[in-house]
Amino acid sequence: MAEELKREQEAEPTTTPGAPGEVTMEKIVSLCKRRGLIFPSSEIYGGLGSTWDYGPLGVELKNNVKAAWWQTVVYGRDDMEGLDAAILMHPRVWEASGHVECFNDPMVDCKECKKRFRADDIAGQKCPECGGELTEARQFNLMFRTHAGPVEESASVVYLRPETAQGIFVNFDNVRQSMRQKLPFGIAQIGKAFRNEITPGNFTFRTREFEQMEIEFFVKPGEDEKWFDYWVEERLGWYHRYGIRPERLRLRPHGPQELAHYARACVDVEYLFPMGWSELEGIANRTDYDLRRHSEFAKKDLSYFDEEEKRRYFPYVIEPSAGADRATLAFLMDAYREDVIAGRPRAYLAFHPALAPVKVAILPLLRNRPEVVAMARNIHAGLRKRWKTIYNDTAGIGRLYRRQDEIGTPFCITVDVQSLDDGQVTVRWRDTTAQDRIAADHIPMYLAERLEAE
Amino acid sequence: MAEELKREQEAEPTTTPGAPGEVTMEKIVSLCKRRGLIFPSSEIYGGLGSTWDYGPLGVELKNNVKAAWWQTVVYGRDDMEGLDAAILMHPRVWEASGHVECFNDPMVDCKECKKRFRADDIAGQKCPECGGELTEARQFNLMFRTHAGPVEESASVVYLRPETAQGIFVNFDNVRQSMRQKLPFGIAQIGKAFRNEITPGNFTFRTREFEQMEIEFFVKPGEDEKWFDYWVEERLGWYHRYGIRPERLRLRPHGPQELAHYARACVDVEYLFPMGWSELEGIANRTDYDLRRHSEFAKKDLSYFDEEEKRRYFPYVIEPSAGADRATLAFLMDAYREDVIAGRPRAYLAFHPALAPVKVAILPLLRNRPEVVAMARNIHAGLRKRWKTIYNDTAGIGRLYRRQDEIGTPFCITVDVQSLDDGQVTVRWRDTTAQDRIAADHIPMYLAERLEAE
Repeated sequence: MAEELKREQEAEPTTTPGAPGEVTMEKIVSLCKRRGLIFPSSEIYGGLGSTWDYGPLGVELKNNVKAAWWQTVVYGRDDMEGLDAAILMHPRVWEASGHVECFNDPMVDCKECKKRFRADDIAGQKCPECGGELTEARQFNLMFRTHAGPVEESASVVYLRPETAQGIFVNFDNVRQSMRQKLPFGIAQIGKAFRNEITPGNFTFRTREFEQMEIEFFVKPGEDEKWFDYWVEERLGWYHRYGIRPERLRLRPHGPQELAHYARACVDVEYLFPMGWSELEGIANRTDYDLRRHSEFAKKDLSYFDEEEKRRYFPYVIEPSAGADRATLAFLMDAYREDVIAGRPRAYLAFHPALAPVKVAILPLLRNRPEVVAMARNIHAGLRKRWKTIYNDTAGIGRLYRRQDEIGTPFCITVDVQSLDDGQVTVRWRDTTAQDRIAADHIPMYLAERLEAE
Repeated sequence: MAEELKREQEAEPTTTPGAPGEVTMEKIVSLCKRRGLIFPSSEIYGGLGSTWDYGPLGVELKNNVKAAWWQTVVYGRDDMEGLDAAILMHPRVWEASGHVECFNDPMVDCKECKKRFRADDIAGQKCPECGGELTEARQFNLMFRTHAGPVEESASVVYLRPETAQGIFVNFDNVRQSMRQKLPFGIAQIGKAFRNEITPGNFTFRTREFEQMEIEFFVKPGEDEKWFDYWVEERLGWYHRYGIRPERLRLRPHGPQELAHYARACVDVEYLFPMGWSELEGIANRTDYDLRRHSEFAKKDLSYFDEEEKRRYFPYVIEPSAGADRATLAFLMDAYREDVIAGRPRAYLAFHPALAPVKVAILPLLRNRPEVVAMARNIHAGLRKRWKTIYNDTAGIGRLYRRQDEIGTPFCITVDVQSLDDGQVTVRWRDTTAQDRIAADHIPMYLAERLEAE
């Protein structure tokens, strides 16, 4: 116990400015840059407004969030198939979906300084920059346009998809037939989407390039309300199970005037970010709008033949649509904790082990003792085949512990002189800093029980 | 043995047209569509030239290829960090990289029919379509252009990245500092890139939207030739270890006139596709070109201070750049086999277990016996937490085996009446169809040894 205390006391304080315990966006942005989670994109060129790059630890965190979602909604179910459709799609897709016609924000221009603003953001009749006269509001489409092929003509216009959902709808028959699925079943997809937002911001919360985790769940008409309720509960529960504190999550049903024209119902899962309650995921009842529209525009019947009822109908669709970047940000902010260990302030990330970027750090206590180093290296070589690991001997143990706490590594393993005699190592648990002494042979089983349990 | 033979005989032939045993692109394209590996993108709208969507099994295969690469080059090494940079970058990046100036193909137009052709593809002076007169060759840039923000003016032009590499170079300092790395070390990244190819084709081999797996490995000048040789061997070995037959892989060094202007050396790893030897991956010695150019264009010193030698220099860069789609296609084509089992022709995919889309199928022999179904469901529930599984009882066992063979599932587990008495199940191995009878309790260990061994 004295030894444990001593190790923790060697640490330096890792809390950052701000009121103690308070999670601010500034603390998180600063931590992300310093510890290799998230960097401003193209930073050496002054950045590209509201675009972000995931660093070495951020890519692990985000991949773990995506893998947890995939594990739950695809591997865990018989009634779900995965998909990975291309970002570039036939332009008629976006006519059928309604995006060419309806995916607009009203914009006004200043007649004097020529600046452009979102009409919703303008309080009065004058330009907020120069006081000049404004034009009438005009529709500005939020899709990114580009051209495929060598000639820039209207026939070659393609859009960067503004949602992954349409890649699912146009593949409905291909997936159903190849996988021999019957209703109810769903198709799940993770992928990039792009929206030319006028006012992106709040770190990675609203960006022009973002990643979605979308499900389109196809059901028999009349069973859609039951399945809608099911998916609202299921998705809320997923955030709980991966560690977000229930008091920071809420459901917000959309009012009738807020619903998209094709939607019968929509509920948002919201998280209490520093800027207030904000959407992580929307669960919508899209009715049979999409399959009907694509049948019409593609002149291909996408209705479903019900073998039991011997009749054809268009399935209804329940859509749980989550943002991978927003979920990652919520897991990150919710995991941020400050406490005091052995009299010293500490900041740590209390990630669910499945989401932690690094699962285990191997920290030899004596880098100058070849036998200790050999034993630690040997343990590391075995563990890295199965988990993301770090081997570090570049500082005192207290400081190394704090560095791992700050990036949310659940377990630290130390090898010391005693280990050479008794074959045992010390395993320290991040949240409590409690330590177990276990046989080196038992490390894989010890970790598997704690890292891979559901 | 008699029982095994009987099961295999229930199968129907699964080979597709073409000379027996020959792997043709047509066979693979047909298999991919039928079994949910790869679909033509936007197919209900007639497709979008040379764009493809990964179906339920294709997304698993491609994810496994990417995970195998990440496991080897990131988790398996102390000298590599991962990254996931945005697709949209500051436009100055592409001036510094040379893409705005040099990433062109020469094109000619027909003055009569107005069609455009790649100059390299034109044999004579006349239009191959109408025989009309052609213009002089003009440069056509292969980057996709679009506009970010509400106003379409030159200041808002952004490009879809034509390679992931530049996202690594501009983050060199951010990664080095946050992860406290010293030379030699590398940064690895997987992500989408886009090139407006004039002549895409050969299924997923050459597409306008594609995914790269790139490493930029930073070394001390003078050590670059040694590291270049190291990475050529390392990357060739990776394809071998994941099951590609050595006789279908070769190294092809670039001749001096073929090298990019910044490259000192380049070797392609080529695979023998049906259309001939084609590039899977290029390993290039990029010298210090990229870090020097970005230092100049961004006015930010990206040189490295060598603590041991107490001097600054620009690191040299060895770049192993692989295509995720090409690697996936090569693993798929190389795995395709035809043989005869119990007198019946069979097609199967002999994937390395780590790459197989589905790891294990649970096939209850008697779907009408509730105890058999309960035992099979129970086994399935345990295995699906760890691996991608399929539960299937919709056909006779011989047919179910063939379906799993055709998608390359390494193991099939059958539960029968005998299982209820002795607690044992039958495990069948794809390649030989040999069967083991093992205790149901031992399935996880049995599979782990065979699926997760390196």
